Amino acid sequence: MHRFQKVPTSTADPRSVNFVVCGRILENLILPCLAKLHKFLNQRFIEILLFRLLADTNMVNAGEMNGSGNLMDFLDEPFPDVGTYEDFHTIDWLREKSRDTDRHRKITSKSKESIWEFIKSLLDAWSGWVVMLLIGLLAGTLAGVIDLAVDWMTDLKEGVCLSAFWYSHEQCCWTSNETTFDDRDKCPQWQKWSELLVNQSEGASAYILNYFLYIMWALCFAFLAVSLVRVFAPYACGSGIPEIKTILSGFIIRGYLGKWTLLIKTVTLVLVVSSGLSLGKEGPLVHVACCCGNFFSSLFSKYSKNEGKRREVLSAAAAAGVSVAFGAPIGGVLFSLEEVSYYFPLKTLWRSFFAALVAAFTLRSINPFGNSRLVLFYVEYHTPWYMAELFPFILLGVFGGLWGTLFIRCNIAWCRRRKTTRLGKYPVLEVIAITAITAIIAYPNPYTRRSTSELISELFNDCGALESSQLCDYINDPNMTRPVDDIPDRPAGPGVYTAMWQLALALVFKIVITIFTFGMKIPSGLFIPSMAVGAMAGRMVGIGVEQLAYHHHDWIIFRNWCRPGADCVTPGLYAMVGAAACLGGVTRMTVSLVVIMFELTGGLEYIVPLMAAAVTSKWVADAFGKEGIYEAHIHLNGYPFLDVKDEFTHRTLATDVMRPRRGEAPLSVLTQDSMTVEDVETLIKETDYNGFPVVVSKDSERLIGFAQRRELILAIKNARQRQDGVVSNSIVYFTEDPPELPPNSPHPLKLRRILNLSPFTVTDHTPMETVVDIFRKLGLRQCLVTRSGRLLGIITKKDVLRHMAQMANQDPESIMFN
Amino acid sequence: MHRFQKVPTSTADPRSVNFVVCGRILENLILPCLAKLHKFLNQRFIEILLFRLLADTNMVNAGEMNGSGNLMDFLDEPFPDVGTYEDFHTIDWLREKSRDTDRHRKITSKSKESIWEFIKSLLDAWSGWVVMLLIGLLAGTLAGVIDLAVDWMTDLKEGVCLSAFWYSHEQCCWTSNETTFDDRDKCPQWQKWSELLVNQSEGASAYILNYFLYIMWALCFAFLAVSLVRVFAPYACGSGIPEIKTILSGFIIRGYLGKWTLLIKTVTLVLVVSSGLSLGKEGPLVHVACCCGNFFSSLFSKYSKNEGKRREVLSAAAAAGVSVAFGAPIGGVLFSLEEVSYYFPLKTLWRSFFAALVAAFTLRSINPFGNSRLVLFYVEYHTPWYMAELFPFILLGVFGGLWGTLFIRCNIAWCRRRKTTRLGKYPVLEVIAITAITAIIAYPNPYTRRSTSELISELFNDCGALESSQLCDYINDPNMTRPVDDIPDRPAGPGVYTAMWQLALALVFKIVITIFTFGMKIPSGLFIPSMAVGAMAGRMVGIGVEQLAYHHHDWIIFRNWCRPGADCVTPGLYAMVGAAACLGGVTRMTVSLVVIMFELTGGLEYIVPLMAAAVTSKWVADAFGKEGIYEAHIHLNGYPFLDVKDEFTHRTLATDVMRPRRGEAPLSVLTQDSMTVEDVETLIKETDYNGFPVVVSKDSERLIGFAQRRELILAIKNARQRQDGVVSNSIVYFTEDPPELPPNSPHPLKLRRILNLSPFTVTDHTPMETVVDIFRKLGLRQCLVTRSGRLLGIITKKDVLRHMAQMANQDPESIMFN
Repeated sequence: MHRFQKVPTSTADPRSVNFVVCGRILENLILPCLAKLHKFLNQRFIEILLFRLLADTNMVNAGEMNGSGNLMDFLDEPFPDVGTYEDFHTIDWLREKSRDTDRHRKITSKSKESIWEFIKSLLDAWSGWVVMLLIGLLAGTLAGVIDLAVDWMTDLKEGVCLSAFWYSHEQCCWTSNETTFDDRDKCPQWQKWSELLVNQSEGASAYILNYFLYIMWALCFAFLAVSLVRVFAPYACGSGIPEIKTILSGFIIRGYLGKWTLLIKTVTLVLVVSSGLSLGKEGPLVHVACCCGNFFSSLFSKYSKNEGKRREVLSAAAAAGVSVAFGAPIGGVLFSLEEVSYYFPLKTLWRSFFAALVAAFTLRSINPFGNSRLVLFYVEYHTPWYMAELFPFILLGVFGGLWGTLFIRCNIAWCRRRKTTRLGKYPVLEVIAITAITAIIAYPNPYTRRSTSELISELFNDCGALESSQLCDYINDPNMTRPVDDIPDRPAGPGVYTAMWQLALALVFKIVITIFTFGMKIPSGLFIPSMAVGAMAGRMVGIGVEQLAYHHHDWIIFRNWCRPGADCVTPGLYAMVGAAACLGGVTRMTVSLVVIMFELTGGLEYIVPLMAAAVTSKWVADAFGKEGIYEAHIHLNGYPFLDVKDEFTHRTLATDVMRPRRGEAPLSVLTQDSMTVEDVETLIKETDYNGFPVVVSKDSERLIGFAQRRELILAIKNARQRQDGVVSNSIVYFTEDPPELPPNSPHPLKLRRILNLSPFTVTDHTPMETVVDIFRKLGLRQCLVTRSGRLLGIITKKDVLRHMAQMANQDPESIMFN
Repeated sequence: MHRFQKVPTSTADPRSVNFVVCGRILENLILPCLAKLHKFLNQRFIEILLFRLLADTNMVNAGEMNGSGNLMDFLDEPFPDVGTYEDFHTIDWLREKSRDTDRHRKITSKSKESIWEFIKSLLDAWSGWVVMLLIGLLAGTLAGVIDLAVDWMTDLKEGVCLSAFWYSHEQCCWTSNETTFDDRDKCPQWQKWSELLVNQSEGASAYILNYFLYIMWALCFAFLAVSLVRVFAPYACGSGIPEIKTILSGFIIRGYLGKWTLLIKTVTLVLVVSSGLSLGKEGPLVHVACCCGNFFSSLFSKYSKNEGKRREVLSAAAAAGVSVAFGAPIGGVLFSLEEVSYYFPLKTLWRSFFAALVAAFTLRSINPFGNSRLVLFYVEYHTPWYMAELFPFILLGVFGGLWGTLFIRCNIAWCRRRKTTRLGKYPVLEVIAITAITAIIAYPNPYTRRSTSELISELFNDCGALESSQLCDYINDPNMTRPVDDIPDRPAGPGVYTAMWQLALALVFKIVITIFTFGMKIPSGLFIPSMAVGAMAGRMVGIGVEQLAYHHHDWIIFRNWCRPGADCVTPGLYAMVGAAACLGGVTRMTVSLVVIMFELTGGLEYIVPLMAAAVTSKWVADAFGKEGIYEAHIHLNGYPFLDVKDEFTHRTLATDVMRPRRGEAPLSVLTQDSMTVEDVETLIKETDYNGFPVVVSKDSERLIGFAQRRELILAIKNARQRQDGVVSNSIVYFTEDPPELPPNSPHPLKLRRILNLSPFTVTDHTPMETVVDIFRKLGLRQCLVTRSGRLLGIITKKDVLRHMAQMANQDPESIMFN
């Protein structure tokens, strides 16, 4: 079994420079110990206790207990494991659907037999909704716990609450009675490390001590996170969305959505976000929600035994994940529909919506931010926007598109470097180095020191009259008598100018560091850093436009809508538009992005600016390359993902793509009644195809069906063990009746049961665009090519993907799995 | 050409009773005159001027000019009309898609030739967005005009504005300076008819005069509407959604989305809504928006020449229609996705969203209700809901489900009666009778007299302190000092009790009259009456719960959340939940319904009650029958609609469904190189199949392709006229090279060009569920059935639908078109 991207840990080069030594110690001494601990825990404790327990109550299917894909003994049931798939293989959607219909039919016909069966059938029908409820509850709870933990640990880097160490800075000062309204952030219970350790809160030495401890805490969190990921759950790294897209399109990656991944990803997510690295929790939350979905679907045989149905649950779980990540249930459903899902029937739409709602309400009742909102950066604006502002909004869209292109190109180049050079061998060291650089550069700048969500929240916010932030340091008119909500445009004060410089530096830093951070072996989301980049750029543009409008009321573009004393420009809105543009440039979302932003602001009013920026950003970014960051990572990893969005417009025919090509050896086929068991076994041994077409005879080559390799192996093994008279010389036949055999010949073996009598065929003249469409819409694994009834060849999903890569002038060998 | 549901007008039965005579006069004298006028206008004026104009500038495709489907002369181009479809036929999605790819490929390769071609290719790429913009603008404008006109004409039934007769009651009193705040509805400029005519505003005679004029105006509007529909655009009747669903699934109904339908539906919609009939404008607005979509797509050859691409535009137009009908752009997109669309790629999602937004903003800038909102019944609530309230909400859901079932059953029974009995022959009379009954019963009750939107608006509204409505006649605590927004629960006053009685009567009346109204030969939507039924029931339940909570604070269920003096129950919210439940019961929407309601209230807060009611209502209604009202009407009309939501779960195989059945004559096939032109012509004449499979020879029956009937006819006609040497004895061949013929035989005719070399095939063992899936997902017209390369039969979409009907114990003959 190959686990992708797993790097051998003991082959370090003896000529390594000094600093690598510490990495080697880490990799070779500490991690193996942890790994052993994990193995012990995993195999003995968890498997024996929990798994067996569940297996006794018949809740986990037998195949799952085998763990790493070994074949079971086939003594108990005639065909166990038939209908399951191997790791890193593609599922056959049509077959899964047909199996589910069979199951459903059986239950329906049984339900008429007795009351008990009727109740069971009702439970079966309701199990989908139950799974959704459970997913919503767990995903909402985990999101709440993560939010609370991140809040506490982020503050832990700066100080500690004396009254109760588990309080975050804000909670600590809430509970304190000595806090005044003016200075909500200061209270005696909350002590910075320098105050606690050397009793100094100001001055150079206190600053240096705090700085040092900030870096230490960050390193400590990051090291813990990367070690946990390396040892316990290598799949917990990254944002997970590329892999989830691939899995939802019908690929099997065992363990990717497992319980260990769920646990480790949740814990390490808290650690890395708290460590101050330039990453977000939103993408990984989708992965966490999908792990929840996978866990709960394994409790119901309807979902655990059918890979197609399981993917419906996962689609809904992804919606629940986005729902809690952004507090946007509708946006979550649309995100699942637009971005991650492959097969999204209407039933899944309803269920996704239900799961997303339950998750959002669970999170709301946990209320992690204490503001009855689901996210830190919820805002409400009070002033409308004006037509003339569309110009800066579209400019922000262009910026977002350029940022998206730059980020994708640089990040992919860096990740490719990581995969192909020695760099990839020291993931722990890489994480520590990046964390150190991030912490060292981030601390001095107030806009990078705080958590990125808080930064975004401050940038989105409109300046009220009581706002004490540096960004709101405007020069007030002493005669102002207007209500607090409706403040006219004012000239910027020195704080705003300082903030502009700091924001500009923070922007450059964020852009650079995010490129190196995304793709490291830790959980890392991209939404928050992208939004932060956009929000910073947007706020700067917003302040610029505001000052321009204030100082030049008489310019023709301002004259109509921006009279002196009016509140015409909202810099916070520019920040939000910029955030949407940058996120759109990187991910190429449009509708779901706008809906998420709409749910964040709660006003139909701002849809047009957001839409303008999102669409501009998509157009600009698409002009430089069609792939979003997730598709780019899928492509980098060589997953067999057939994108619904790509249009195939070339003039090739099925005959150009099918195997065997001209000059290649003829297609390996089975005949319906003339091959012996030994012939079949030799064929299986000599080739590694996933299945073989069955034809009438080698001469006529008329197709009668298709047999899966896996099922052939199982059936022959089973027959040899249990059926008397089946020997190597036995004739294998796929027809209804046994062929006429000479007397004394051994007992023939009938394999019609495993024959797929309705294999999918196209003619050799079928345009490839139709073939691609069929593969996409029906979710096929392979398709046979015929001409006037004669079998010519076979096209697999891999062949299709390779052909598409070739046509797009890419390396067809980059498609690795089938 | 058959137009469905068209009833001959001159066959009235001589034994008709007296009141039918007046109907006959209408039908036989007045309408024919109008019809002639229409014909004149249509044929001479419009066709000559407008159409020819467009045709000259090459903007309308040639096929459209033929109007009623006659074949053109084929002298100019070798194969005109190839690739178009006949009326009441199903399109082939795969072929349309492949044609579009060809076109796209051509443009892309041309675009490299010159700057001009490059600009043309850019324009082509942008034309989709331009069409969306135009649709949004026109749909928004039409919706605004309709709203304004309805407002004015509804008030015209009661009185007139003396200062300007084109002002509605509200506008009239706005512009008046003499209006006091307390009595906003009364101003001297606005005069009731009795005041104007006999100078009396009170008293029995004034009441009777107003009553009489109210009925007369209603009759007048209704008669005008039904006459316009009968004469100018028979397709303008009904809600249009069943037909649009069918069209979007790939059916051709020429003229259904034509310019005349657009014009007449817009005008008559205003008339019927103003006439006070129990119908709404929301469904027809979707039809109007789709007509706009069809109109604009006919301006761009990319869409006008490709039925598949055209349907993408129509899906987006439907979203724009709902967007303006409910002021809910996101809900509109989801409605199009969940309810009406068939093929909804992501690109369409983005474009739908854009069209919906543009439409909403156009409507908002027209601001027809003067409240900056897109709909009359926008509300904002101030109090949260409590867990215990879920019980009445679910009860409302059950009510909604029952109402949905009752309505669908009764309405379908009545419509079937209309189709099959003499009733259907007097549509004008029917409309007039129903209008008269509606007006007579509706006038005395204040809740039915006003327009249904206003009723819904009042029922949704929370009672503020200043509300003067009868429904808000609570007994106030004289010591109350609370702010106006937050009024504690109060005991009901006499007005509320009167309102309850009137609401109960109005509810019964609405339920009965809506059953008879929906399906008449006038534009009639179902959303508003359904919502009104639910809102009335909901408000009554809400008031009941409120009074219960007020008088029984100490009950255990109220004790926790409803202390004395608290504002715990919002009857308006119950009305909204009831409206959602009833609409859900009738249409079976869930997600889009909840999102529409969410956009109406603008609060995430109330999603759970709405969702609970919508899902309950769907479950209850589904328990009595799976079909929503639109599917029921599609079924009643026998359209070939393959519903995505129906699951096919039977165990039949392709061999059970294909033609020919056992014992039937063998399949009519063409051979690849042995039939003469005459043989082919005879085959075409003797059968009415849409196409013929082409096989190697009658003996081997190995399939090589499929030829469309329409294209065969065109090709042979064309060849006979233009190709020398092609006579009846010429051999028709479909192979690459001509067959070897004896000397002196006539010139053979090569028809490989029209042969589809990649017909879709399945084996005879393919389960029907897979076949159904393939038909649905790929949008096929027909599929050939083979066994080991030998052609056995054919399955058309009609066969699939008939088989599904048979399996569901319905009459398979109800599927009428192919």
